[in-house]
Amino acid sequence: MTGVVTLSDGSGGAEMDALIASFNFEDRGDWMGCDDDGAYCNINGGHIVFTTDSYVVDPLFFPGGDIGCLAFNGTINDLAVMGAKPLGVSLALILEEGFPLNDLALILESIKKQSKKTGVPIVTGDTKVMEHGKIDKIVVNMAGVGYVEGEVLAKQILPGDKIILSGSIGEHAVALLSKRYDFKTDVVSDSKSLLEEISAVSHKIKFAKDPTRGGLAAALNSICEKNSVGIMVYEEKIPVNESVKHVCDFLGLDIYSLACEGRFICVCSEDMADDTVRILSTFNADSNIIGEITDGSNVVLQTF
Amino acid sequence: MTGVVTLSDGSGGAEMDALIASFNFEDRGDWMGCDDDGAYCNINGGHIVFTTDSYVVDPLFFPGGDIGCLAFNGTINDLAVMGAKPLGVSLALILEEGFPLNDLALILESIKKQSKKTGVPIVTGDTKVMEHGKIDKIVVNMAGVGYVEGEVLAKQILPGDKIILSGSIGEHAVALLSKRYDFKTDVVSDSKSLLEEISAVSHKIKFAKDPTRGGLAAALNSICEKNSVGIMVYEEKIPVNESVKHVCDFLGLDIYSLACEGRFICVCSEDMADDTVRILSTFNADSNIIGEITDGSNVVLQTF
Repeated sequence: MTGVVTLSDGSGGAEMDALIASFNFEDRGDWMGCDDDGAYCNINGGHIVFTTDSYVVDPLFFPGGDIGCLAFNGTINDLAVMGAKPLGVSLALILEEGFPLNDLALILESIKKQSKKTGVPIVTGDTKVMEHGKIDKIVVNMAGVGYVEGEVLAKQILPGDKIILSGSIGEHAVALLSKRYDFKTDVVSDSKSLLEEISAVSHKIKFAKDPTRGGLAAALNSICEKNSVGIMVYEEKIPVNESVKHVCDFLGLDIYSLACEGRFICVCSEDMADDTVRILSTFNADSNIIGEITDGSNVVLQTF
Repeated sequence: MTGVVTLSDGSGGAEMDALIASFNFEDRGDWMGCDDDGAYCNINGGHIVFTTDSYVVDPLFFPGGDIGCLAFNGTINDLAVMGAKPLGVSLALILEEGFPLNDLALILESIKKQSKKTGVPIVTGDTKVMEHGKIDKIVVNMAGVGYVEGEVLAKQILPGDKIILSGSIGEHAVALLSKRYDFKTDVVSDSKSLLEEISAVSHKIKFAKDPTRGGLAAALNSICEKNSVGIMVYEEKIPVNESVKHVCDFLGLDIYSLACEGRFICVCSEDMADDTVRILSTFNADSNIIGEITDGSNVVLQTF
């Protein structure tokens, strides 16, 4: 093998998946869902759910959040979309020598605040410091363990099922970009815990997924692929904040590929859809049915 | 706060502990052992054990191992010393753009080999790639989840209890140094899974700990501190490979501070000690009783 790792290998896309898959970690023992955001295994009648993510964010602080709350919420959201109650989260810090303690304090305070708010404790951790110049500022890795009494939230999806988006998209990515490239906007990151929202509708829905890396487009495509179904999405039904729309038009960004950090897509049978939207609307006013499962094999965006 | 992170903050010592502790992650919910290598919480009559570590190793490949097997064995050993059966391990890779795919393949193959050997699957993961120059080659983070039927291996330690070392110390650190500074020695890293050894004696012992960062000295001191006991160690009883001794003499290294990656210390009542050593000797010929718990408050090394 003569190649090298490229930046696109880390985009969470097909390249890296293929790279890792080529090493055949095929024997997962009793674990299922290993290709999803959280793997799960049966234990004493319930299921443990296990997830990990490393966070590399530029800038570390942005309108509406920072790398700390992003990592914490991202980790527990990966458990929440599986229908799990998060039991505990690990915190592994990799720091550059010379990193300001004041910034570290802000990041830790932010994690602590989310931990308190959600009632999910930080239970174990590790800290490594690398020499100045051997890492760029800070990387935060978190892993999370959750528990589901009974089955995880992964019921069979069928044509005719409705697709609901919990709120407007693109705000996290636009907030991050506004800080990185120093342009003015009133958009703040949507980073937040989805525990309450998902738990409020978990008895009505079949499946949930948070559109983080790759945004709505990647999340919908992944639903198609993994369930061998098609999806029809109605563009006019997708909730988008006006300021986000303006930034995307101005910068030529594809809004459907922008990361969200406090939204989720769920799939439910037609008869549950209105009730689910009604409940979700108490959290985000613009929650909406954005499309449905079809017997096709890919995502079709209806733009009329 | 005006200071900066220093290299010594990452040594796993008191500085970083104090730094993190100062942010008061005091609410651990139902979790215990959060200051140890693995935290645990009661679930349906048994206990889940949860641990994480990031691995930053120079060089990545060394006599007897590499960063891959080191991370995998280190993670499952942190579960094993709690008396847990590892259920699954996460693998989070943070890679530098341009990192040779061939080296990545060797590291992944090494992880896979240990996973197969121990029967512990890699069940979830994440990969991030940072721009060239923003991280030094590769950082591997792993988290592990284990399960104990009944109680974890953390019984009360009392004066008169014996301290047993499972095998000779210092080999991992010396192997690493020999590659880093390019000197000749026949010493290879002791990196290996401790699952079988600990499970073979777990019904006879009260407590186990692997002397990784900070070596035997740090592990014994931590036992004293956390249990409010003293320890008497007999220098002549501590098994040391002759080649390791020569390297330490030559380079002026403190052998008791050198990291081991395939050894553990255990504490048991006096009447279980001989049996425990007999069992451990089938794994490492030089397993030995090296000392005992006293009613003092620190570690005393008897050098007669």
